[in-house]
Amino acid sequence: MNGNPPDGPAPAARPPGPDEDRMARIALTWLAEPGNRTVWTMTRNEGAPAALARLLSGDIPDPALRAAVLARTASGDPRRLAEAAMRRAERLGARVVVPADPEWPRRVEELGTLELDGGGRIGHDVRPPLCLWVRGAQPLDEAFHRSVAVVGARAATGYGVHVTTDIAYGLAEHGWAVVSGGAFGIDAAAHRAALAAGGLTIAVLACGVDRPYPVGNTALFERIADTGLLVSEWPPGSDPLRHRFLIRNRVIAAATVGAVVVEAAARSGAVQTMGRVLSLRRKAMVVPGPISSAMSVGCHRLLRADPAARLVTNLQQVLEEVGSIGEYYADPPRGREHDRDTLDEESALVLEAVPRRGTASADQLAATAGLSLRTVLRRLSLLEMTGLVVRRDDGIALAPRPRSAGR
Amino acid sequence: MNGNPPDGPAPAARPPGPDEDRMARIALTWLAEPGNRTVWTMTRNEGAPAALARLLSGDIPDPALRAAVLARTASGDPRRLAEAAMRRAERLGARVVVPADPEWPRRVEELGTLELDGGGRIGHDVRPPLCLWVRGAQPLDEAFHRSVAVVGARAATGYGVHVTTDIAYGLAEHGWAVVSGGAFGIDAAAHRAALAAGGLTIAVLACGVDRPYPVGNTALFERIADTGLLVSEWPPGSDPLRHRFLIRNRVIAAATVGAVVVEAAARSGAVQTMGRVLSLRRKAMVVPGPISSAMSVGCHRLLRADPAARLVTNLQQVLEEVGSIGEYYADPPRGREHDRDTLDEESALVLEAVPRRGTASADQLAATAGLSLRTVLRRLSLLEMTGLVVRRDDGIALAPRPRSAGR
Repeated sequence: MNGNPPDGPAPAARPPGPDEDRMARIALTWLAEPGNRTVWTMTRNEGAPAALARLLSGDIPDPALRAAVLARTASGDPRRLAEAAMRRAERLGARVVVPADPEWPRRVEELGTLELDGGGRIGHDVRPPLCLWVRGAQPLDEAFHRSVAVVGARAATGYGVHVTTDIAYGLAEHGWAVVSGGAFGIDAAAHRAALAAGGLTIAVLACGVDRPYPVGNTALFERIADTGLLVSEWPPGSDPLRHRFLIRNRVIAAATVGAVVVEAAARSGAVQTMGRVLSLRRKAMVVPGPISSAMSVGCHRLLRADPAARLVTNLQQVLEEVGSIGEYYADPPRGREHDRDTLDEESALVLEAVPRRGTASADQLAATAGLSLRTVLRRLSLLEMTGLVVRRDDGIALAPRPRSAGR
Repeated sequence: MNGNPPDGPAPAARPPGPDEDRMARIALTWLAEPGNRTVWTMTRNEGAPAALARLLSGDIPDPALRAAVLARTASGDPRRLAEAAMRRAERLGARVVVPADPEWPRRVEELGTLELDGGGRIGHDVRPPLCLWVRGAQPLDEAFHRSVAVVGARAATGYGVHVTTDIAYGLAEHGWAVVSGGAFGIDAAAHRAALAAGGLTIAVLACGVDRPYPVGNTALFERIADTGLLVSEWPPGSDPLRHRFLIRNRVIAAATVGAVVVEAAARSGAVQTMGRVLSLRRKAMVVPGPISSAMSVGCHRLLRADPAARLVTNLQQVLEEVGSIGEYYADPPRGREHDRDTLDEESALVLEAVPRRGTASADQLAATAGLSLRTVLRRLSLLEMTGLVVRRDDGIALAPRPRSAGR
């Protein structure tokens, strides 16, 4: 690439007007799928209107992009399509948000420097969105500021739905926005739980915000739009083409503080999302499950593949990961089993000698344990202090155990 | 500790006769619970007969040990008890194995330098066994040479028993001895599976090898003794005192190449065993489970606490951990989802355009995808090569998908 590399500095252009920038970004997203590296770099360097003009003039160094732009322009005028999309959005009560807007979620700009190993075109084209279509009243930046993605399989099991509900409900209760896609299974369970908790939930879609997909979630999308947000890179009316889910996933990863994957098949979209989360050094949290469940294979594979993927088993552990330091930290529960494990040998012998039912005198304990009475009395004080035995009027007894535990 | 530290060098003693050494080791194990640091160090430095003589003379720097020895000697003569234990073992067809014997399992000697943080007396006294009582024909060292511990909860769930059976059966099939305790639940399931596979299984007990505990496993112990091994540090007739399970666990950890914990409650004995395994830098393998199961809490806690604890989800992964390099290595399965994820944008568009049912011509695909016919034909070759589409007489169709996967 000689002469005029697209990543190089460009001559200072007349700053575009706000509407011109907005329209150009919409048109650019229609010309090439979001995340396209060349288009994003041209836009960053030259501004969206100049980048659009250049693409439309055919001055495109990347042959694949040139072919795609040619194919798209053959079916319509990008500027007129952008205007139509804006009118359609207005009728819907939707808006389009661009980086110049105060509510632009800044975190997604970290995609500007993300480099992935492999992943083909979709792993190469992970640049930030040019614009985001939104339905819902909340400003985007505020909504994403304290947000956690909860993602996973469409074909979730009862276990996965149960765990998702617990975690998403708890996140919402603690003031965290829940972010997910719009699919059946884990996605829908996460949104429903956040809504049930009266919390904020955000669906990031791979189609237009007016295009309920899957149709079975139509009522859910309406509820989300009422109190939360529907967000998409694609203009209203866009179809949920299969590869768009994989393009969309980078936004879920980038816009949130971290992501929890609850259930995921091997090499599923949720696993791909977690790959983005890990590459962006966001908190990557993984719920384990039965090794016999196909829906946990992806989760276990993530845990085995990357030490930064953190196994989580409850809401508390999720909050500890995403909260600021000390915000949610809790000591692990210290059970009596622990006290029992750390006993010195004499105390262990004394404890062994205490009958399971009823009581024994210190003399009886000394005889059973094969220890002197003096030793038994000294050790009993310790055992009493740690709560393992109690002194009663008729002698020494085991303290009642509130819970059982394996050996 | 001035003057004569127990860890310091000692004057060269007359080498004891083999019987004298053996008898002294049995007596020493009766005087103080196995693993005792002072007793083991004295035995290493001075030989077992001299260490025994010194303990019986009351020349004991450690006050706790002195008290324990006094309490034990008050109830019997250690040398006579050792002789009685030997006679009892002979009647049983059991034998006692000491480090001087060719079949001594050398790996347990690594306990000689193990230092643990915390764990009280039982964490302090983790020195090697002085002797091992054995029922079964196999030489100890050969049996443990290629062995894997499979440990876990008494109160195992159906899931835990199922997973244990799969792993232990497979280990036995691949010529690995299975090592466990003698408890209900995971222990018993591991032994049963190894026996069912016609493999070698070893129960390391916390009581005499003639003392079936729990009694419900009596028939299982007899079957193990017939083709495998019953092993214990305690002489025949010894009771399974509660703290002995925790003392015993270090032998399971030290004698094996690695250990798999299938299910374990928080702070259970199995978790303690895995702590020893990790400290000894043996392979520590942990099976995850549902986060809603109390019997997986210990497993998940291990995985969260120590990056060296390796999550395993099947036999193959266990074999890869314990096998020599390359012995069992297998590529992770590469599904079609992967091929699909790495498609370039044009190929993805072409693939999208192929109908879910039936076929389409290349012209139809070009129209649907918005690409030139030339591009479509080029991309179809790639899609065909990766097995995503097939060419039929009536056009192009999606390749049949052998399995479904989450998005």
